[in-house]
Amino acid sequence: MDQKRFEQQVRFILEIDKEKNILRQTHLSGHGRRENDAEHAWHMAVMIYLLREYANEEFDLAKAMMMALIHDIVEIDAGDTYAYDEEGLTTQKEREEKAAERIFGLLPEEQRAELEGLFAEFEAYATPEARFARTMDNLQPLLLNNSNSGADWREHGVSRSQVEKRHLTSARGSKEISEFAMKLIDENVKKGNIREG
Amino acid sequence: MDQKRFEQQVRFILEIDKEKNILRQTHLSGHGRRENDAEHAWHMAVMIYLLREYANEEFDLAKAMMMALIHDIVEIDAGDTYAYDEEGLTTQKEREEKAAERIFGLLPEEQRAELEGLFAEFEAYATPEARFARTMDNLQPLLLNNSNSGADWREHGVSRSQVEKRHLTSARGSKEISEFAMKLIDENVKKGNIREG
Repeated sequence: MDQKRFEQQVRFILEIDKEKNILRQTHLSGHGRRENDAEHAWHMAVMIYLLREYANEEFDLAKAMMMALIHDIVEIDAGDTYAYDEEGLTTQKEREEKAAERIFGLLPEEQRAELEGLFAEFEAYATPEARFARTMDNLQPLLLNNSNSGADWREHGVSRSQVEKRHLTSARGSKEISEFAMKLIDENVKKGNIREG
Repeated sequence: MDQKRFEQQVRFILEIDKEKNILRQTHLSGHGRRENDAEHAWHMAVMIYLLREYANEEFDLAKAMMMALIHDIVEIDAGDTYAYDEEGLTTQKEREEKAAERIFGLLPEEQRAELEGLFAEFEAYATPEARFARTMDNLQPLLLNNSNSGADWREHGVSRSQVEKRHLTSARGSKEISEFAMKLIDENVKKGNIREG
């Protein structure tokens, strides 16, 4: 064991413990407390494994799962940006790139490069793994929100076009799951959980 | 898309959301609040990916990660059993098998069989994936506890022989990581964080 290398890995592993304190806007099913990034990433990785049959393209399972597990690590420094926060979205990229440099920079060089690569791929929908992981990133809060009678959408006054825009991009990873999402959105508009417009 | 199949999968995905409310004895780094099972599983899966070079044997990465992600799902019904709770450990197996039947039983049949298999393998150290995943299951709280000056060990009056017994089994997955753990335990005994005996 190369002690210096192992220490770098352990330092990164301890640093990312902080992700467990980064809260999202989404609430747990049963409208419990707000979900944190680590819980969301755990859920996404399980979903990638279980729902992979619906992906448009073949993909590397471990790679997609790791991508999901680490995609929000930058929020330790950059904070969570709500999917429908138009102002926050304008500065998100810059804040997250700086965070990626610091946090992934704790790792040994080739692992830093690999994880920065996974993060960049995810952001850019660049690969089959990224496209399916992003579909899960959209589907996971949709399922929670639907199970909570749309409490998060109502709280933020989110509109049909905002939610649909997001779930249309899900089709890049899975046409079938995007179609399912559109149906669920439509049901929630009819119930008044998402406002028309 | 087979609607019935997809509904079964979604039902399972929503059911396991409850894992985010199952608290462990371990506290987050910085001696924050107690960690929950989903956070612990997330951390373990990331560690499997990053530390796989230290495994004794070659293993299937996605399989080991999924095993880590789902290994505590049974605790939704069975509750968390602390690694040093001698009484709880006697009934743990029975409680967890019943839980596995109910929760994995929500899935389509072949996925139920697969996940029950992963869970059983993990419990029995039956495969290289299980052995390395269990090493991570031991290492993850060790790192957190060490970073917190052993607050959890002190709270429970845990002894050197109890902690060493657990981390000796880590050698089944990684001799190198087990050796690292033994050194860290020794340091914590010297600091008075773990009691001699």
